[in-house]
Amino acid sequence: MTDLSPLSELTPPPFATRHIGPDGADQTRMLEAVGFDSVADLTAVAVPEAIRAADRLDLPAAASETEAIAELRALAARNTVLTSMIGLGYHDTVTPAVIRRNLLENPGWYTAYTPYQPEISQGRLEALLNFQTVVSDLTGLPIAGASLLDEATAAAEAMTLARRAARAKSDVFVVDADALPQTKAVLRTRAEPLGIDLVESDLTAELPECFGVLVQYPGASGRVRDFRAVAEAARARGALTVAAADLLALTLLAAPGELGADIAIGSSQRFGVPLGFGGPHAAYMSVREGLQRQMPGRLVGVSQDADGRPAYRLALQTREQHIRREKATSNICTAQVLLAVIAGMYAVYHGPEGLRRIARRVHRHAAVLAEGLRQGGVEVVHDAFFDTVLARVPGRAEQVVAAAREGGVNLRLVDADHVGVSCDERTEALHLEKVLAAFGAGAAVLADLDTAAHDALPAELARTGDFLTHPVFHSHRSETAMLRYLRRLQDKDIALDRSMIPLGSCTMKLNATTEMEPITWPEFAGIHPYAPQDQARGYLELIGQLERWLAEVTGYDAVSIQPNAGSQGEFAGLLAIRAYHRARGEEGREVCLIPSSAHGTNAASAVMAGMRVVVVACDENGNVDLGDLVAKIDAHRDRLAAIMVTYPSTHGVYEETITEVCRLVHEAGGQVYVDGANLNALVGLAKPGEFGADVSHLNLHKTFCIPHGGGGPGVGPVAVRAHLADYLPGHPLHDGSAVGPVAAAPYGSANILPISWAYIRMMGGDGLRAATEQAVLSANYLARRLAPYYPVLYTGRGGLVAHECIVDLRQITKETGVTVDDVAKRLIDYGFHAPTMSFPVAGTLMIEPTESEDLAELDRFCDAMIAIRGEIDKVASGAYDRADNPLRNAPHTADCVTADSWDHPYGRTEAAYPVASLREGKYWSPVRRIDQAYGDRNLVCSCPPPEAFED
Amino acid sequence: MTDLSPLSELTPPPFATRHIGPDGADQTRMLEAVGFDSVADLTAVAVPEAIRAADRLDLPAAASETEAIAELRALAARNTVLTSMIGLGYHDTVTPAVIRRNLLENPGWYTAYTPYQPEISQGRLEALLNFQTVVSDLTGLPIAGASLLDEATAAAEAMTLARRAARAKSDVFVVDADALPQTKAVLRTRAEPLGIDLVESDLTAELPECFGVLVQYPGASGRVRDFRAVAEAARARGALTVAAADLLALTLLAAPGELGADIAIGSSQRFGVPLGFGGPHAAYMSVREGLQRQMPGRLVGVSQDADGRPAYRLALQTREQHIRREKATSNICTAQVLLAVIAGMYAVYHGPEGLRRIARRVHRHAAVLAEGLRQGGVEVVHDAFFDTVLARVPGRAEQVVAAAREGGVNLRLVDADHVGVSCDERTEALHLEKVLAAFGAGAAVLADLDTAAHDALPAELARTGDFLTHPVFHSHRSETAMLRYLRRLQDKDIALDRSMIPLGSCTMKLNATTEMEPITWPEFAGIHPYAPQDQARGYLELIGQLERWLAEVTGYDAVSIQPNAGSQGEFAGLLAIRAYHRARGEEGREVCLIPSSAHGTNAASAVMAGMRVVVVACDENGNVDLGDLVAKIDAHRDRLAAIMVTYPSTHGVYEETITEVCRLVHEAGGQVYVDGANLNALVGLAKPGEFGADVSHLNLHKTFCIPHGGGGPGVGPVAVRAHLADYLPGHPLHDGSAVGPVAAAPYGSANILPISWAYIRMMGGDGLRAATEQAVLSANYLARRLAPYYPVLYTGRGGLVAHECIVDLRQITKETGVTVDDVAKRLIDYGFHAPTMSFPVAGTLMIEPTESEDLAELDRFCDAMIAIRGEIDKVASGAYDRADNPLRNAPHTADCVTADSWDHPYGRTEAAYPVASLREGKYWSPVRRIDQAYGDRNLVCSCPPPEAFED
Repeated sequence: MTDLSPLSELTPPPFATRHIGPDGADQTRMLEAVGFDSVADLTAVAVPEAIRAADRLDLPAAASETEAIAELRALAARNTVLTSMIGLGYHDTVTPAVIRRNLLENPGWYTAYTPYQPEISQGRLEALLNFQTVVSDLTGLPIAGASLLDEATAAAEAMTLARRAARAKSDVFVVDADALPQTKAVLRTRAEPLGIDLVESDLTAELPECFGVLVQYPGASGRVRDFRAVAEAARARGALTVAAADLLALTLLAAPGELGADIAIGSSQRFGVPLGFGGPHAAYMSVREGLQRQMPGRLVGVSQDADGRPAYRLALQTREQHIRREKATSNICTAQVLLAVIAGMYAVYHGPEGLRRIARRVHRHAAVLAEGLRQGGVEVVHDAFFDTVLARVPGRAEQVVAAAREGGVNLRLVDADHVGVSCDERTEALHLEKVLAAFGAGAAVLADLDTAAHDALPAELARTGDFLTHPVFHSHRSETAMLRYLRRLQDKDIALDRSMIPLGSCTMKLNATTEMEPITWPEFAGIHPYAPQDQARGYLELIGQLERWLAEVTGYDAVSIQPNAGSQGEFAGLLAIRAYHRARGEEGREVCLIPSSAHGTNAASAVMAGMRVVVVACDENGNVDLGDLVAKIDAHRDRLAAIMVTYPSTHGVYEETITEVCRLVHEAGGQVYVDGANLNALVGLAKPGEFGADVSHLNLHKTFCIPHGGGGPGVGPVAVRAHLADYLPGHPLHDGSAVGPVAAAPYGSANILPISWAYIRMMGGDGLRAATEQAVLSANYLARRLAPYYPVLYTGRGGLVAHECIVDLRQITKETGVTVDDVAKRLIDYGFHAPTMSFPVAGTLMIEPTESEDLAELDRFCDAMIAIRGEIDKVASGAYDRADNPLRNAPHTADCVTADSWDHPYGRTEAAYPVASLREGKYWSPVRRIDQAYGDRNLVCSCPPPEAFED
Repeated sequence: MTDLSPLSELTPPPFATRHIGPDGADQTRMLEAVGFDSVADLTAVAVPEAIRAADRLDLPAAASETEAIAELRALAARNTVLTSMIGLGYHDTVTPAVIRRNLLENPGWYTAYTPYQPEISQGRLEALLNFQTVVSDLTGLPIAGASLLDEATAAAEAMTLARRAARAKSDVFVVDADALPQTKAVLRTRAEPLGIDLVESDLTAELPECFGVLVQYPGASGRVRDFRAVAEAARARGALTVAAADLLALTLLAAPGELGADIAIGSSQRFGVPLGFGGPHAAYMSVREGLQRQMPGRLVGVSQDADGRPAYRLALQTREQHIRREKATSNICTAQVLLAVIAGMYAVYHGPEGLRRIARRVHRHAAVLAEGLRQGGVEVVHDAFFDTVLARVPGRAEQVVAAAREGGVNLRLVDADHVGVSCDERTEALHLEKVLAAFGAGAAVLADLDTAAHDALPAELARTGDFLTHPVFHSHRSETAMLRYLRRLQDKDIALDRSMIPLGSCTMKLNATTEMEPITWPEFAGIHPYAPQDQARGYLELIGQLERWLAEVTGYDAVSIQPNAGSQGEFAGLLAIRAYHRARGEEGREVCLIPSSAHGTNAASAVMAGMRVVVVACDENGNVDLGDLVAKIDAHRDRLAAIMVTYPSTHGVYEETITEVCRLVHEAGGQVYVDGANLNALVGLAKPGEFGADVSHLNLHKTFCIPHGGGGPGVGPVAVRAHLADYLPGHPLHDGSAVGPVAAAPYGSANILPISWAYIRMMGGDGLRAATEQAVLSANYLARRLAPYYPVLYTGRGGLVAHECIVDLRQITKETGVTVDDVAKRLIDYGFHAPTMSFPVAGTLMIEPTESEDLAELDRFCDAMIAIRGEIDKVASGAYDRADNPLRNAPHTADCVTADSWDHPYGRTEAAYPVASLREGKYWSPVRRIDQAYGDRNLVCSCPPPEAFED
């Protein structure tokens, strides 16, 4: 036989060919449609020459999926999973396997987007409502949100909420000396730019004048304290009380709401979410009646659909818009949905009596341990505790901790004389024996200690009354029932496993399985964030590599992956700028220029960083108005701290003037912040750190394949040029840093970093660039196909867009009454998640296809949009009734299309199967269009009773 | 605070509480309905005292899920995964991660049942059609089946097929000397009882008179040979040619059909299915036109539904019934669906050019290796090969193999002078270097060898022409597209993740996640079945424990887990009986008594084991007619080999007479075979090995939680009393055994044994008994609830059933024309998989709820059955038209219920939402009722063109 080919020509196709949707033939057809011969030609026109990177990315050559997994296994093997009894807000837990596999490892859950389109999000909204019900029931406060980023930032949000809502006009916020150290540190970071005076107190003396006080319940030291008097004193001063409470402890202890707390915050990590070296975990917040409109983050509520049936959606969303921009005091826009859903499902799986049994066992282990220590002659500092025993061992603490570690158990070294030991769901007699032995108190028999030990929960703080009485916490206890419940909810939703989610500015690309697999490996999932660093060698190596690679991709000199959301990355970036100016003696630089087209979070972050926002106008093409920029710089030259711009712009265009903008700002002594939200249009083609920016945050959940999880987790690393490197976020557990931490855990959401690591490792520099080129080609292909039907709002050079395009419905709405909302909801009938609605321009749809969608799917979407345009034309021509047509009535449920009576002037087939391809696996919206206003007028934020769903 | 409780009272609830659906309160309500105070009271009445086990099961105390996983991790760690280049039908491969996670690890796929109800199985049927298309295209034979158990048994099936179909009247079957050793061994096991004379030949001399010949293509030695002349000679003698062919090689080599083969068989393992220490893997069989009605196993075909649209279903199913019972020559009734689906999806993922590229690379590696060996002075035996190089190293073979193993590579030790090296998809340059070094031929630079090496595929055997031209093999290449394709197919089907599957005799219980997780760990997935035993220590320990536990549960003395399906377990059990009689000089004992109610497979197995079937009558209660039994024993006393009975009977009743049956048969010198299909009614309550049986096979996929996988894999261990222990199946790679192997791999489907191990480990003796008790209670609860609406056909003592019940529709059918089929299809509209239809009695439904379904689900099912009875009454009363009613028209698709015109005399709501609970997550059948006969008349067994689906 003729020789086929040498080995060198037979290498398997790279991962990039699986990540990128269109193949060579598709790409050729798309290029033809757009009018170019090659993607290089296309990007040569689309991307301004001034910003184009000179060199190829200096990254390791692309690894295959098999190689990447092998390398990740090797990294994982460099981590050492010991039993961690360190506590401090992180407790080992058992993730029920049925939840791990069918939720955490299931793309039907993890690839979903934030539930802004509630009709196609009923499954995850119900799951979030379960979470809110858990939090509300356990904290004894009626309104709980759909999760925050971590306990420490939740505390900071509570602090600013208190400042907004308190009657007291003080600038003082009192923090419990027994609060978690990372909570104190993040409070400090957040307080300073806002002029809040953070006062630490043991809360025994009289409460000073203040606008709020935070009590840790139980304390970091383990102590359980009745804080009623503190709350009363606060109330008397017009201040609010924040309880940072442990949800598991609350199954046995009086609810914070009963003790007088106005706000409760904390972590839900120990409800089944792996330690993961610090995150991601869902923090919670609940508030008393009256504070709900001040609450940061998202809130799921119950409303009704067009048929009057109960339906879930995000409540008070105007509030979310409202708290952004320059008046904001919170920049939160992500939640930790996937983790909140896990925590909620953990409660569904165990039910109230199961949770209480776990809590009792945890407590009993602690009580037995305390008894053993006392019998062994070791002083136990507190009499009342839940899970954590603080032992006094003068001068011996290090030795005890070292001995325990020898036995495979990490303890908390508090100081030279004190050791903390926290029990958790995984604690067994074996561990107590090891710990007692480490203290030199191992003589007693555990069963004897169990007989001798008394419980250590104060009687006056015993929880009374039922909680989690809703049937959902009593109906899915067998694994079979739990499995089906998860499937049923999943089936209600559209995620990336069903169809493309063409969300402008959100980059819903493939979250490849190989990227996702490592995160549930025990070697990554089981590490405590404060475990000795030598137990996390694999993590640290991975993090170091990822930070270096991200620096290379962006052209910056240093990266911190600590920020656990884009918003936190922005805040960290602005803090770095602030610290830089201050270090140079330029405290007066406090003005942050922000173009009017910017994402609302930008302004909110600037405010949080103590800056004053000055808005720069945009011209009619959506670009920064250079004239206005010059004027604003002139007006604030000496006070200019920074400009924040998004690149490509939020309009999806490569602005030609970006280098000029950078030059002008730098000349005035300001720093340039480039928001990395649209980095998917730049990777491999241009580097912000090279074309003039000083700082960026990235969104690993957009550009670098961390899935959106239904609305979190995200990771928002901050990247800076060398002169700002010293001002990246620090952490109390590490060496001192000029700037404090912005997140609870030193490495933020470390557990999901293997995803982005794997993506970069498998794409290599060429693959990353190819992805960007395809993303740009796909957006331009869509724009070309849709332009005859919907005007494309902004374009750059050559009439090209970047990686997304905006189609303008304003004229259509004016002429026909058909709104963006109608089109968005009608797309559901066609099986699609709507594009981004009315951002950045009201009355438009912003479409971002990403590189991962193949041509068939892009065409299916275009065909749907074009068919909808045909329907709009029927409204225009009068063929469809203006008020009763398939657009206005969308989405159509199976219930409504199969009803015995049908009194619409159009047919059932037109309603449900407007295009023939829907016959193959139609998605049915579980509810009709949801009435947003009704739900806000009648706010219900925990699970409604089953009767509500009766016909 | 008062002390809550000591640690000893706070142990977490055992896994059994998750496995068993009803909780304590549910159980109380069910007992009330059935009229007992406790499950002990219930089983005391239901289970005959004579068979009840005296002692509790002597098993390790139940482990928690966490503990079981930890123990499995420890076992896994005792396996050593080396690179295996052993070949012999097992080749390492890359399971695409997207397929592993979303198919192999997805309960939506693995908990599905065999697609006997085709309307709710369209997803897996399409997937199987893909597999058949792959096989048919690559082998060049038009009809391919939906998989067989393994290559060796497929070869045996081909042998018996040839005997049935050949013109030649010879008893001789010729097997290629270069066939796989396990194939030869299994052929030997299967040939002997059937009187087939197996002749080994190198096929160079003239072919003897024979009815068939098997050619290995390429051979076990790696040699690629043109077998056209052999096939011609066979045809001239009226014999059939069987090609045992490697599917990957066939992407480059001429198809067996083109070379004259009548039948092709082989393994599809290397299409993405893990080695798994030998299985499960899907074997394939394809045949030329004219042989399809003789083909064993299942065949998926295309038919049409009530609306005339294409729809898939098992074709020629009457054939499957037909080949069973006493005229049978095959007892196959399971396939390896899950693995066949993976193999098919692997082809979808790679497409023809991807498969060819993999094959070329594999071949090229082999060619380069051969060049390196030759340059290093090592003789390469064959000039023409695909992936396997046979090296001649006189006297040095052991040394070479040992050296390679030192380097981390397993080679094949052929004999003292020969070493075999097989390249596969995972082979890299690194491995070649190690192998060459082990041969002492490592001097050359690989790139130079690549330049020097010639391909070694004979030009006259080059494949020409396209294959896999169907669009399905070209449309799902990106991971996103693949993910969505898998989801779309999954969504068409009902599996256990949606609703209960109440299949009598099939025990569709929970397949818990913790049981499933280990099977995809690399330490279990990556071991070659012929790897040195010291690399499989963890496996061997696990297998040993499992065999001991199964012996304890069944009361037998020895167990072999080799049989990879229940049918193979039966065959192995009967072979043991046969060998035992022969060893005692009683060759004449050849009569096997089988009650008329028996599963058809029993008789087929007896025939395969060279026995003569004599049927024993059953009385009107479905029990063995003792009078007839005595008569039959008398008639055949000296020739009596065995009786095969199922216990509890296939009628779902604990027969009182079982001990008497055993006594009578033993007295006559016969052995008692108890079919373990219904063991779920016995575990922990009674042991066949103690109440009189000598042999049983178990179904790990029924009683011990291996999922059904859509129709396989199964595992059918054979368990025997001590006197038969020497006659359990052996294996050519192990020490000599009196009986040959019944499966290709020494430990059968080893990869899935961790599932059953984990189940027993987590249930413990008490949990297993509790599961059985609940299964019996649930069946009796169903029987009580349904009895007022449908007569329950058979009951035992106290009017009780065992773990399943039969409801009788014959009278209803007579009176109303409504058939079991109508009820079964109407259940689909209610969201349920139908119970077992018309087995063991035509016109009935056999319902087995299993212990895993909770009360809510049992009631939902009863409510559906009762509502259907109401619909039947409407037919009876004339309120419904006899020919046009919701029963006859079931299932109703969304298409038909949403059509613009509706001309049925009942309403759309009545059609689609007969009960209100369906509003919450309705399952829509993707097709209407399928016309079975049409498909058999117009047999199409590969993917139909997309145009077929156009409206």
